Amino acid sequence: MRVGLFGFGRAGKAVASVLLRSRDTQLCWVMRKSKNFQYKSVSEFLGVSSDDPGLIFSKSEWTAAGLFEHHPVDVVIDFSSANSIGFYGNEAAGRNVAIVSAVSEYPPKILKRIQALASKTRVLWSPNITIGVNFLMLAARVLRNIAPYSDVEIIEEHFKDKPGISGTAKRIATFLEMDEASIKTIRAGGIVGCHEILFGFPFQTVRLKHESISREAFGNGALFAAKSILKVKNGLYSMEDILLPYFKVRTLKSCS
Amino acid sequence: MRVGLFGFGRAGKAVASVLLRSRDTQLCWVMRKSKNFQYKSVSEFLGVSSDDPGLIFSKSEWTAAGLFEHHPVDVVIDFSSANSIGFYGNEAAGRNVAIVSAVSEYPPKILKRIQALASKTRVLWSPNITIGVNFLMLAARVLRNIAPYSDVEIIEEHFKDKPGISGTAKRIATFLEMDEASIKTIRAGGIVGCHEILFGFPFQTVRLKHESISREAFGNGALFAAKSILKVKNGLYSMEDILLPYFKVRTLKSCS
Amino acid sequence: MRVGLFGFGRAGKAVASVLLRSRDTQLCWVMRKSKNFQYKSVSEFLGVSSDDPGLIFSKSEWTAAGLFEHHPVDVVIDFSSANSIGFYGNEAAGRNVAIVSAVSEYPPKILKRIQALASKTRVLWSPNITIGVNFLMLAARVLRNIAPYSDVEIIEEHFKDKPGISGTAKRIATFLEMDEASIKTIRAGGIVGCHEILFGFPFQTVRLKHESISREAFGNGALFAAKSILKVKNGLYSMEDILLPYFKVRTLKSCS
Amino acid sequence: MRVGLFGFGRAGKAVASVLLRSRDTQLCWVMRKSKNFQYKSVSEFLGVSSDDPGLIFSKSEWTAAGLFEHHPVDVVIDFSSANSIGFYGNEAAGRNVAIVSAVSEYPPKILKRIQALASKTRVLWSPNITIGVNFLMLAARVLRNIAPYSDVEIIEEHFKDKPGISGTAKRIATFLEMDEASIKTIRAGGIVGCHEILFGFPFQTVRLKHESISREAFGNGALFAAKSILKVKNGLYSMEDILLPYFKVRTLKSCS
Repeated sequence: MRVGLFGFGRAGKAVASVLLRSRDTQLCWVMRKSKNFQYKSVSEFLGVSSDDPGLIFSKSEWTAAGLFEHHPVDVVIDFSSANSIGFYGNEAAGRNVAIVSAVSEYPPKILKRIQALASKTRVLWSPNITIGVNFLMLAARVLRNIAPYSDVEIIEEHFKDKPGISGTAKRIATFLEMDEASIKTIRAGGIVGCHEILFGFPFQTVRLKHESISREAFGNGALFAAKSILKVKNGLYSMEDILLPYFKVRTLKSCS
Repeated sequence: MRVGLFGFGRAGKAVASVLLRSRDTQLCWVMRKSKNFQYKSVSEFLGVSSDDPGLIFSKSEWTAAGLFEHHPVDVVIDFSSANSIGFYGNEAAGRNVAIVSAVSEYPPKILKRIQALASKTRVLWSPNITIGVNFLMLAARVLRNIAPYSDVEIIEEHFKDKPGISGTAKRIATFLEMDEASIKTIRAGGIVGCHEILFGFPFQTVRLKHESISREAFGNGALFAAKSILKVKNGLYSMEDILLPYFKVRTLKSCS
Repeated sequence: MRVGLFGFGRAGKAVASVLLRSRDTQLCWVMRKSKNFQYKSVSEFLGVSSDDPGLIFSKSEWTAAGLFEHHPVDVVIDFSSANSIGFYGNEAAGRNVAIVSAVSEYPPKILKRIQALASKTRVLWSPNITIGVNFLMLAARVLRNIAPYSDVEIIEEHFKDKPGISGTAKRIATFLEMDEASIKTIRAGGIVGCHEILFGFPFQTVRLKHESISREAFGNGALFAAKSILKVKNGLYSMEDILLPYFKVRTLKSCS
Repeated sequence: MRVGLFGFGRAGKAVASVLLRSRDTQLCWVMRKSKNFQYKSVSEFLGVSSDDPGLIFSKSEWTAAGLFEHHPVDVVIDFSSANSIGFYGNEAAGRNVAIVSAVSEYPPKILKRIQALASKTRVLWSPNITIGVNFLMLAARVLRNIAPYSDVEIIEEHFKDKPGISGTAKRIATFLEMDEASIKTIRAGGIVGCHEILFGFPFQTVRLKHESISREAFGNGALFAAKSILKVKNGLYSMEDILLPYFKVRTLKSCS
């Protein structure tokens, strides 16, 4: 699988590092915003030798057409900002290159455009693209269906300076049709990130808990999303859509 | 729903207490092993007034035919021992009374007989009949399918004097095709019971955790099992079979 | 050690059960508010045989002088309400009987009276009398002294219907000179009670966590308090005062 | 406080980063084993501007006498290996420069030499130099003294590939006079490091838990150790010795 990556900020760098180390993936290039950067490839930047060094480009050097022509990929992974898809979207869709975007938010106008692109190629958009958090959300919805009478609490822990409620916690609340205001927010020291969904029953509790160790978790999630999306038909998908088929566990020992 | 309960040990009493308090359930009778008991009904024993007092019987007072004739029920819930089903099984199946058994273990001979009964009525057998633990097992299997490369650890905590590895932890291990020997066993003080399935990813962890508060959790699970089983066709079911349909989460926002 | 217990509500009964089972303690009597009670002793009520049955009295049957004269004790343990000490205080102090009170709150007027009693006997008053919570508070104060720059969060979990912030969490906050408003409150299902004090450092976290399994924990705490207080001189003590000496850990391997 | 650092491996680099960012500390130099290194200072290596750049030296460039003469420091912090103290020990002790060593293990012969050095200067040696873990050990010992009858379990979690039982867990076990074999070892994914000491009481549990976020935690611990040791007289200290005075919490509201 050949990958082109948009975005080389803190998350983008972590994702690039995972992609470069993945055996069945070829990180062809990374597209940065600004031009000046002392390293020419991801492998040089990370100090890791690799057959596919992951060339580092900047937007001013390329047109989208030129980029995809000279450096063809199967999937674009986007960890940049809402604007980038304007640069590469049409050209990617036209060549049936799949798109995996982890951009936090798109204005309605751009979102419409993405829906249009999704008729020509496969597009997956998920603001939190880790496997863990998205699995948690689906599992929590299952348990809510089983036991709608149980009490649910969402607790999130992050580093002291993180402002407001975590976006991921808000998404979990929306997904479980809960009030955002009920989220319990813990802020202390350098906690990377922890989300817990607690189900309280009269005589037992179930806790579904996700702990982030580092940003590289986004890399594994993006890789999983990219591989999965290449197997489905055109359309707009969320991370949940991709995980959903795994919830069809085979029947275990039912008899008839 | 009219219920008859076999078994009035520590678990049986807790289950009876939940059944008596449930509004849409009628606890008709409880069958004890021995004859001498100073209380005549569950409501008297618990000091709770109730329209359906839950009469307390002993096996020596009844034949199965007489019991089901004079005190008809829709479901038998069995928290006694492996022998009881020999007493009530045929008679219950013949009248199409559903059977929910939480007996820990059945010898192969009796198990065969149960399979035969399951052609005439609905039978659910689950040694740990809590909603929480069985949900955990299914959710864990889903995550294993999504991420077969992740490391899984099973950790169980119980009171100091509990001998050996917990039966529930063993069942989880079997269900996840893991080696029983890898279960980590914590024994301290009066911990009622805690099971954690930990998934370790390179850059994140997911923890699925169940904590028991008291034995009454079995009552809620048995009630859930009894209600669910009345809606399915004849056959032998596990608790997982009953929870499985809830894992078919509706598609979220997939477009085509 | 001969003990008399005031209060036979839910906490009082649990405490009585622990006292009755303790080998080196003699539960002489329990004083209830109201007269009518079908059981004459704690051992009969609990269905446990014991050399010292723990007679059950009601206040209307006795004067304090008569009570201590005919049924002398070394310690009074008080799990009743603020008024009881008016009944037994003077008489107990006059006979140098120690007093251990777990009453939630005393009005200032009664508190003054208690301070006066404390010049004649040993009095310990602690609204949450478990060993665990009081140890936690002291340990947390130690860590705050070591690392005043760390971020502290107090998180408490209780059953759904518990109103307001837990009194114990408020006490922890006061003890650590933190704002009560910063306590995070989780309410779900039947959680008995859990208090966590989280210390966030830039690159590590420390969590001090107390989980209640049942009310009997008060019994062990009261027993510990009663035994400890018999060894100190007259005065008014808190549970912390009694635990404090244990924080003087011997020097380990310092050389000079 | 002027600091010289021995060791520039993974832990050493993390420590250097903390020292460079500390306001009241001056990282004068770092001593590496090998000569070839493309960066001349820690600030250049980390890409952080600083008044005190933290020069990077190698042992072959210096004698100990020359080093301390031309680049005087108040404290040596040692995150290298057992041999280094042979290079700098005598010279440091002769100039009354304090020594803080986080070397994992010293052979008996070198340990004897360290004890001799400790008669001429202050030496602190602690294989795990975080504040959190050492606080945990002392707090656990306090609780063991309060409740010797409680059940204690040590649980440690680390990344999949960590071989054997964690050294820190072993130290905790030794410190609490427990059998090393009873430590529960969890290995999964990329968990940085977690140590829990669980106290089980009949009706409550207390959990003391330390989670590492990153190696920089050693930096804060070393800084704390260095500052503390400058205030004490000559001798050999452990991290516990330095934390011990903080366990003398003032009496709270005891009256007489």
